[in-house]
Amino acid sequence: MDKVFLIVIDGLGDRPIPAFGRKTPLEAAKTPNLDKLARGGISGVMHTIDIGVRPGSDTAHLALFGYDPKTYYTGRGPFEVAGINMEVRPGDVCLRVNMGTVDDNLVVVDRRAGRIDDTNPFAKKFNGTVVDGVKFLVKAGTGHRLGIIMRGKGLSSQISSADPKELGVKLKTVEGLDASKEAKFTARVLNKFLLKVYKEIKDWPLNKQRVKVGKLPANFMLARGAGVYPELPSFFDKYGLKAACIAGAGLYKGVAKILGMEVIDVPGATGKPDSDVAAKIKKAIKATHKFDFIFVHIKGADTLGEDGNPEGKKAFIEKVDQAVAPLSKLKKSLVVVTADHSTPCALKNHSADDVPITIFGESVRDDDVEAFGERACAKGRLGRIRGEHLMPIIIDLMGLAQMFGA
Amino acid sequence: MDKVFLIVIDGLGDRPIPAFGRKTPLEAAKTPNLDKLARGGISGVMHTIDIGVRPGSDTAHLALFGYDPKTYYTGRGPFEVAGINMEVRPGDVCLRVNMGTVDDNLVVVDRRAGRIDDTNPFAKKFNGTVVDGVKFLVKAGTGHRLGIIMRGKGLSSQISSADPKELGVKLKTVEGLDASKEAKFTARVLNKFLLKVYKEIKDWPLNKQRVKVGKLPANFMLARGAGVYPELPSFFDKYGLKAACIAGAGLYKGVAKILGMEVIDVPGATGKPDSDVAAKIKKAIKATHKFDFIFVHIKGADTLGEDGNPEGKKAFIEKVDQAVAPLSKLKKSLVVVTADHSTPCALKNHSADDVPITIFGESVRDDDVEAFGERACAKGRLGRIRGEHLMPIIIDLMGLAQMFGA
Repeated sequence: MDKVFLIVIDGLGDRPIPAFGRKTPLEAAKTPNLDKLARGGISGVMHTIDIGVRPGSDTAHLALFGYDPKTYYTGRGPFEVAGINMEVRPGDVCLRVNMGTVDDNLVVVDRRAGRIDDTNPFAKKFNGTVVDGVKFLVKAGTGHRLGIIMRGKGLSSQISSADPKELGVKLKTVEGLDASKEAKFTARVLNKFLLKVYKEIKDWPLNKQRVKVGKLPANFMLARGAGVYPELPSFFDKYGLKAACIAGAGLYKGVAKILGMEVIDVPGATGKPDSDVAAKIKKAIKATHKFDFIFVHIKGADTLGEDGNPEGKKAFIEKVDQAVAPLSKLKKSLVVVTADHSTPCALKNHSADDVPITIFGESVRDDDVEAFGERACAKGRLGRIRGEHLMPIIIDLMGLAQMFGA
Repeated sequence: MDKVFLIVIDGLGDRPIPAFGRKTPLEAAKTPNLDKLARGGISGVMHTIDIGVRPGSDTAHLALFGYDPKTYYTGRGPFEVAGINMEVRPGDVCLRVNMGTVDDNLVVVDRRAGRIDDTNPFAKKFNGTVVDGVKFLVKAGTGHRLGIIMRGKGLSSQISSADPKELGVKLKTVEGLDASKEAKFTARVLNKFLLKVYKEIKDWPLNKQRVKVGKLPANFMLARGAGVYPELPSFFDKYGLKAACIAGAGLYKGVAKILGMEVIDVPGATGKPDSDVAAKIKKAIKATHKFDFIFVHIKGADTLGEDGNPEGKKAFIEKVDQAVAPLSKLKKSLVVVTADHSTPCALKNHSADDVPITIFGESVRDDDVEAFGERACAKGRLGRIRGEHLMPIIIDLMGLAQMFGA
């Protein structure tokens, strides 16, 4: 049975960059190794969710793994908290949180408290707090991030966000998004908790010290992305494949954990443009001794797209290209290279533009595509697929697909 | 009105064959006549059911004729029994059966009783047997095959198979596949019947004689593929076309009969690689005097794919190519050449890989495709269609499509 590598280069797709003669960063980059995969493989373009739908990172990954986000997506919270190893139970409402800075009128001054780099003191102080019978589990994430789990009876994830996602405007009061009493109750309890935290930390010595040295105080937990822990069949139950995930950023580890994949940590995998992508690929190849399906998530291109930095994105893609070189030499393998969505530098955000995809392996019907890029792959023989088609195609190429009929 | 020929070359599609320089058997074969059809026609690729779905032969044909298998497919049994001219009524549970060989512990020794070539004595002996109020109609098929119809009240086709599809393992007890009492009852009655048959024939003179001359005894009816006779609109009611079927193998005749097509028998049409394909095509052309739509099923390429025999498949395709030569000379005709699914030699089984399709006729928008093959057709102007699109396209090319709107 072939081993499968699914390499997701986050935010890879782009739009024409005038400074690159209207090439995209991927098209402008020198990518001999990705091109080799495209030459020996079958290529096409993919809409992870659907034509014209701008995917989030979370929904895009659910779709790529064959889990319809319309059915299974409840919010980003569960994936974030799973990604920082919080133990989640069915019924838990999960939230992603930034430590932020507000002024005395609760107007947002900074959404990341000057990019505070350690939220452990906050997590430690408030983990286990009970408000109106609801237990708050709090854990530090990377940088300015925290995860919060609300555990108790009668909760709902149909609540709005405290984070206005803008500076200079007042915090939002969390509200129920439907008419249920559970949503109302959950919103009320969360508001109480967030204000209690604010009152207890705004004059904390830690914050006084930060202000003294010219930093912004970290005085408010900007909670958003409420979601209830989704009940879904594991990746193994669905496909019969032992799967592992290699990623730097928490969200992708969280998605993998919720699907029951094993998360393999790689030193130097930062989830940032400085990540050691080569080390991740090496580890992925080693992991085939134990696993059938290795999902490698590479974040940097997305970040650089959001920064509006085409030069940086191009350079990062060239680094990825060097890193994937060993994959084109493997036998009995299927190597899938694609993205979860486009992040055009001009837009500094996700777009609904399709993403290129190549499936490389001995059994695939190779085509005439000579380069891995948005324009080249659009002429490939895989055609135009949706994310939901990817796993069935992989499973069929492996010879494992169930027949419909006889 | 143009006459339509739908030529289905079963299992035609393949994956790259290293010995053919990574061409497929179809691409490696010399096919001047198929190429002529492609040159004068519009070509594309087709997923009979959907992208990534591995079609069975029965579901694929339903889809090709515009009958959604998700709605109309209940199991293979009805098509098999219809294919051997058994009269079926709504409510009947139909089964396909092999005469097989089991040992004294009911372990399967051979699934085809050494390819016994006449099951008439078995059919004759047990046709009309009644067990617990359920009547068993039994008829011989070709070779080791039989058809069984269970007729009575309170039956369900939601039952499992007696055939473990493996040698050296015990027969399976038929079980209900849902919690209904009908499924339980049907399973119980079928188990009773199968054991009764076993007891009555295991020491039959016919079997003693077989053993004496070194053959395997035919002592068990391996029943599988239970399905209830589907209620569906006839092909004529759906499209207003008088349709005929020319096929060697029973299943395809059965599909045609259930759709109300007339089955035309052609001497030498064996459903095997030795079939007289040229005679089938000649007969199809003659049949246009009486019919509007002629479905010609050609089986050999599928069998050779399942045998893992690319040389044989290539040679068979060349035979088909010679046979279809007269089709390219017809006036006022639409000639559709395609497949129901791919059967890659490397996989020895159906796959979800798309199949090439060409529609040849004066009215079609011909394209730049110069050859009939997987790679060439993927560049055709018909694009990438699903099986459900085929009949609407044909009906529209004939000028018979109903307008949606006004």
